[in-house]
This record gives sequence, C-alpha cells and structure tokens, in this order.
Amino acid sequence: MNKTEEIKLIALKGIPEVAEGDSVGEMILSSAAREKISFLDKDVVVVAQKVVSKAEGRVVNLSGVKPSEFAVTVSREVSKDPRLVEVILGETKRIVRMDQREDGKGRLIVETFSGLVLANAGVDTSNVSGGADVTLLPLDSDRSARVIREHIKKETGKDIAVVISDTVGRPWREGLVDIAIGCCGIKALSDHRGKIDTKGFELAATEMATADQVACAAGLLMEKNAAIPSVVVRGVSYIQGKKGSGELIRDPAHDLFR
Amino acid sequence: MNKTEEIKLIALKGIPEVAEGDSVGEMILSSAAREKISFLDKDVVVVAQKVVSKAEGRVVNLSGVKPSEFAVTVSREVSKDPRLVEVILGETKRIVRMDQREDGKGRLIVETFSGLVLANAGVDTSNVSGGADVTLLPLDSDRSARVIREHIKKETGKDIAVVISDTVGRPWREGLVDIAIGCCGIKALSDHRGKIDTKGFELAATEMATADQVACAAGLLMEKNAAIPSVVVRGVSYIQGKKGSGELIRDPAHDLFR
Repeated sequence: MNKTEEIKLIALKGIPEVAEGDSVGEMILSSAAREKISFLDKDVVVVAQKVVSKAEGRVVNLSGVKPSEFAVTVSREVSKDPRLVEVILGETKRIVRMDQREDGKGRLIVETFSGLVLANAGVDTSNVSGGADVTLLPLDSDRSARVIREHIKKETGKDIAVVISDTVGRPWREGLVDIAIGCCGIKALSDHRGKIDTKGFELAATEMATADQVACAAGLLMEKNAAIPSVVVRGVSYIQGKKGSGELIRDPAHDLFR
Repeated sequence: MNKTEEIKLIALKGIPEVAEGDSVGEMILSSAAREKISFLDKDVVVVAQKVVSKAEGRVVNLSGVKPSEFAVTVSREVSKDPRLVEVILGETKRIVRMDQREDGKGRLIVETFSGLVLANAGVDTSNVSGGADVTLLPLDSDRSARVIREHIKKETGKDIAVVISDTVGRPWREGLVDIAIGCCGIKALSDHRGKIDTKGFELAATEMATADQVACAAGLLMEKNAAIPSVVVRGVSYIQGKKGSGELIRDPAHDLFR
C-alpha cells in the first residue's frame, strides 16, 4: 500500500510524571515497549511541550518570584498574579495585546524571543504539581526535538522525526489547536510551489506547514486531561530536514494577516 | 481498545472529476466501496471544498466577467486579473489587507460574508478545467456538509459527521493548513473548560477547535496534486452537534490576536 493512503496516530500512554533530568526519549521508548509499538523509519513522534519543559527543569515556583513594578502594573491590566506576569515577561520580546474581558478574565498575548506569538508566552499553570508551579517553554525546542530523536535513533536504529507541540489560540478563529514549536528530522514547510496540479497548471502558493499539521493531528489524541503527552504519527509523506521550526515563523514585514 | 488511543486517516481515492449537479455523498460512497472501506458510527468524513464547490456549480468562467471600476483599481494594487478580483469582491464583506511583494506577487486578504478571513475570499484557480474557470466557496458549507452526511446516513445507516475543509494561510505562521469551513454532526468546539486536569486543578481555556483539528489532520493526506479530495478520520473522540462551523469564527470584538 502506498504510504500516502493511510495515516495512523497512536497514543503513547502510561508516561509517568516527569521530573527534571529525566530522559524524555527513554520514557517514550519505555511507553512504546509497554504498548508493543515498534518504531518504523519515517514515524513522527509528537511530544507535548509540557513534559519536555519539566524534564529540562523549565519549572518555576511562584513563591520565589519577586515581581517588578512593571509586572505589577501589567498584572492589574490583565488580572493575573503579578508573580506569574513577572515570569511571562521574562520570556517576552514584546507585548502584542492585553486586555480584560467582561467576565474579569484577562489575556496577555506576547511574542516570545523565538518569535512565537502566544498567550502568556506559553507559560502554563495546568498539570504542574503544587499549583504554584508553572512551566516555561523549552529554551530551544528544536534542540529538545533533536535530543529525543537522536536517543530513539541510537536505541532503535530507526530514522524518525520529532515534533514538540504546544496548544495555542489563533487570530480570527475560536478554539485552540496544537502547533509545532520545535522539530527535528522533518522539514517544517513542504514546498509544493512549482509542482503541477491535476489539470497541468502550476500550483501557486501551496507551501504546507507540515510540522504544524502533524502537531495539530496529534492534538486530537492529546486531550489535556488524558495524560497522553506523546503520539506516534505514522504514514505522513514528509521531507526530511534538520532546519528546525524557525521557518514556520512568518516575517512580520510580509505578514498581511496580522 | 479505547477509541481515544488510536486514530486512523484513510484516503478516499479515485473520486472522478466532479461536475455541477453531482452528488458528492454518492461519489464518496462509490469510492469507499471500491476501496473496501465500510463506514462506522462516529467516523468523520472530511471533504475538500473544491469538489463541493464544483458539484454545487460554484464555478465562474472569467471570460464572462466584466470588472467594475473598483475591481480594476484593486487589481492594479495586487497585480491580479481584474475579472478575478471582480469575482473575489463579490464574495467579500471587507478587504482586510492588500499589497504586492517585491517579486510582483500580489495578495488580497478579505473577510467573507460568512466571517472567514481568507486570501482571495477562497476563490481558487487551481485544478479547475480550462484555466479561466475559478471556484468559489460553497454558499453555505454547513448545509453542504449536512447534505453529504444525510446521504451517507441514509445509504449506510451509519451516524457519521462531515467536515468541509479549505486550505488557508495564517497570521504569524508560514505555510498553509486546512481548516473547517463547514461541518455537520460534529460539534466544532470541544469545551474542556471546567474539566479537571491530572493534578486536580480546573483546566482554563482549553476549548479545542475539534473540527479544525480534524480538517488539518486530513490535510496531511490531501496533497493538492494527489487527487484525494476526501479522507475518512476514524477514532476521534468528538461531541455530536448540529450547530455548524459558525462557532469557530471569533468575534472581532474579542479577538486579541488580530
């Protein structure tokens, strides 16, 4: 069967609570072994940001955070804990928008140093032990993906790709979806420009965001409360590449959508 | 096996060239029969906008279009055929942005009457016979989804959902992904708010755009030049609903991302 005819998404369950220093690659291999899943060449392993952040020690306990005056000012605008705002601002290149809705819930949309535009700079308060702990995005999610990829390759001999995903809001559209904040082994963008459509005409502007598509698909199995932090995506026709996720960031100068 | 553990995407191949008046539901059933795919309750059938538009006669031959003065003005701004611009403006509630890049390629981002923000109002020149023919989005994609759903239900007895997808650009992110421009039988948004995470804390703002996730996943099999206009997505844990895709449109007043 042609590999573009069917794609399978397989949940990797039973990955235990992750602590700083844990090997995410090893935990994925253990889970796969327990579930009797053997990796194949060209599998894409999608890993939720949260477990990567925890393993990399990107966890902050708010009790030790002293908010700056600016953080206190912003915290009033968006009705959030000033210590949480302090942590968010530490990850922030610029504030895109902030406000408070009628229901009192505030929103703080920022651009991170890696160019992602995210609510709260991706700083997350759910599923972290203690309640006062928050997770920050990995410092370099492409590197995180590379480490996991190389571990799995070393142990299994299989040439897989890894995508680190996060759940984000979007302009114009309600509801969250998962995107790729890091990747290794897969070219994030698949350029179909210059190819010919079924009628023989050249295809215009069909550069697909393959890594985002894979992350989004995996998100269908990663319900927040289902303890499924990793999904194997099998059968995707992708281009191998090591450039990482940076090419998914649109140059603001060419961004007509914002 | 629990149904949230594995999701399968199955391409429906061999769907022939679609003409006005054709039943898309019937073509999907024929393709499924040829491929020996039996529908199951809760399958989601994703159908590319293009075939729905063609079947509904939403095709315009540019040779018969007389551009207005405004269309001519806009066409110069974005270096596009003034007749194509005339067709786009007929689908447009407001122009969001327009420009021309250094390479001479123009872009025209508009909001359609149904609230979608799209390049060229979703008017598409690829894969249409003759070259001078363009397709417009279905007038009511939720209705299109309902017609297909009811046909499949009548013929197979299976309670499936249908999503009509289109390929779109996004703010901040390079590359295209597929979104749901119409749906029936699936609730477009899955509200996880109020649910409890694995640590016992209430999950904040995790309302997933399920119909978009399904459309995006199916897009992995719908390469533009691969003649795969429909994909069966099996194993998604979704909420049934008949409200359509409107709840995916973010109220501009609450859109901090734009």
